[in-house]
Amino acid sequence: MIPTLEWLPTGVNFLDQTKLPLEETYVLATDYKQVAAVIRDMIVRGAPAIGVSAAMGIAIGIDRSTATSLEALTEEVAVISRTLAETRPTAVNLFWGIDEIRNLYNGLAAKNTPIPEIKSAVVSKARRMYDEDIAACKQMGAHGAALLPKEGTVLTHCNAGALATCGYGTALGVIRAAIERGHKIDVFADETRPYLQGARLTAWELLHDNIPTTVLCDNMAGALMRQGRIQAVIVGADRIAANGDTANKIGTYTVAVLAKEHGIPFYVAAPLSTIDLATAHGDQIPIEQRAAIEVTHSNGKQMTPDGAAIQNPAFDVTPAKYITAIITEHGVLQAPYNQSIQRMAAAAKPELTAV
Amino acid sequence: MIPTLEWLPTGVNFLDQTKLPLEETYVLATDYKQVAAVIRDMIVRGAPAIGVSAAMGIAIGIDRSTATSLEALTEEVAVISRTLAETRPTAVNLFWGIDEIRNLYNGLAAKNTPIPEIKSAVVSKARRMYDEDIAACKQMGAHGAALLPKEGTVLTHCNAGALATCGYGTALGVIRAAIERGHKIDVFADETRPYLQGARLTAWELLHDNIPTTVLCDNMAGALMRQGRIQAVIVGADRIAANGDTANKIGTYTVAVLAKEHGIPFYVAAPLSTIDLATAHGDQIPIEQRAAIEVTHSNGKQMTPDGAAIQNPAFDVTPAKYITAIITEHGVLQAPYNQSIQRMAAAAKPELTAV
Repeated sequence: MIPTLEWLPTGVNFLDQTKLPLEETYVLATDYKQVAAVIRDMIVRGAPAIGVSAAMGIAIGIDRSTATSLEALTEEVAVISRTLAETRPTAVNLFWGIDEIRNLYNGLAAKNTPIPEIKSAVVSKARRMYDEDIAACKQMGAHGAALLPKEGTVLTHCNAGALATCGYGTALGVIRAAIERGHKIDVFADETRPYLQGARLTAWELLHDNIPTTVLCDNMAGALMRQGRIQAVIVGADRIAANGDTANKIGTYTVAVLAKEHGIPFYVAAPLSTIDLATAHGDQIPIEQRAAIEVTHSNGKQMTPDGAAIQNPAFDVTPAKYITAIITEHGVLQAPYNQSIQRMAAAAKPELTAV
Repeated sequence: MIPTLEWLPTGVNFLDQTKLPLEETYVLATDYKQVAAVIRDMIVRGAPAIGVSAAMGIAIGIDRSTATSLEALTEEVAVISRTLAETRPTAVNLFWGIDEIRNLYNGLAAKNTPIPEIKSAVVSKARRMYDEDIAACKQMGAHGAALLPKEGTVLTHCNAGALATCGYGTALGVIRAAIERGHKIDVFADETRPYLQGARLTAWELLHDNIPTTVLCDNMAGALMRQGRIQAVIVGADRIAANGDTANKIGTYTVAVLAKEHGIPFYVAAPLSTIDLATAHGDQIPIEQRAAIEVTHSNGKQMTPDGAAIQNPAFDVTPAKYITAIITEHGVLQAPYNQSIQRMAAAAKPELTAV
């Protein structure tokens, strides 16, 4: 089991993903501000992991609060929520994680529940979300495994693995599930510039599980597809719009176009919490722009001359038409996605469709 | 003028492209073995620059020879040629550069030309090839400028610039020529992993000429095309087969697929010496595989865990069907390329078509 994050009596313990693969070190966040910093600094990343981290962040904020009145605590919860919400804009799971705890809090506060009882309830809820995240990944694996080839090479981009969730992974969870069911799968991992989540994280966690892994530069996937060396693509998602358009790590769209050109299936694996019914289509998804230094510098050394402008969007949007199927914990969605998503959301989470 | 390489009385002087953009240092090669090392170690790179460097390498080998008989010198020329030919396999210009000097040598040797006269002739020829390379780049610019937008952003991949030639550049030469003719062009430069020729070299030489340049990771071009932010693509070539299939820096094929998907013209700029009539189609072009460490390590730091397999092809092949036009010093080629290439080769270099 890869220990991406863990609720401890002393705080939330995070595997420091900025230090992988060479160092396996941990950061213990003992208050909500530290949890926010851990999310912002990408010590933890990956939409589902960010969602549960945010939930734990609010839970620890409430649990550690010294407020003696519900009014004071409610004001604190607003500040805590805002602090966590401002860490990263694209992954909708962040806001989902915050809302799950805040809605529980609001309900309990409205009923004048005693503060100790509220604290206990929100911590329990955050820990349950952790367990449910892992269970959802396993269910995605169960639903998606049969889509992957019995024998072949599967390309993935970025890290949608145990390290992007509370364990097991979304895209890599489907790969794990296929292998557990006897498929012979090699993984090609795009290194995923500029942050190298593929080279550093995907390779690390797959090799940890003895899954054969080849790392390639992002610009090599096309040539390998043309040579017939890739049989399927599977990626995660940071936000899926109501029509199926999918925001995911920058470069995902390019992989989707390449897959279409070569007749290779392109799968997205994500929990229902990644689907944002309030976002009608992909162009409404805010795309985080990150600092130029991630592109210009490499391990502290400047690689790009002064004076060059820099592009560094953290995500891109893959229109639904490129997506062969979306694998969720409730089953596999197919086009037309605006219909299949509504149907699944109505069945799984009736309250969502009211948005 | 960017001093990529220069024939000096003391040897061939190379701008060390492995040190750019932070350091502008030079390597003086005083014998042919040093020229071979400079090519192999990518102190000089880019197909046209490699071709002229190889020619200068043989010329310096002949010029510095202490052989006193034509028999001994001919044996040396065979060794020199083999040493240079073994440096890098993909760019056909390397073999073209070697052959140009060796054919001259063989002709003169067959006529029992005195050794001092041979030395003078091969050095003159190599220096003339340098001048002709720059002239060819200027002619490519003149032929290709009108193809680029009057106003807009042009994407390029790797470095097909002054640094890849003896000056001015092939793809970047066409951009320079368009700007000299009044086009308002911004350049998007793919950083070009793993060697970062785009970030390090293309950005350096364009900013040197005050051409506005934005560097992006290779995986970002697709998203930017989808946003309508790229109006044309222009790249160089390392070898063009008789049917127009083009080997160029790894990642070029991906850019070509993206350009097709977005209806953006995709141009190749290369001198006729890059066209290899002896290669019928792209799959016959040998693709250099380079060391894994270029992918796994970044400025000396390991980024990929031990145990991961690595892909590091230096080039890929873009089938002719993706290429809108090939810009040469003799004019612009269009599909069907097997016919247009034969016609141009017959007109420009009748001896080539006999291959």
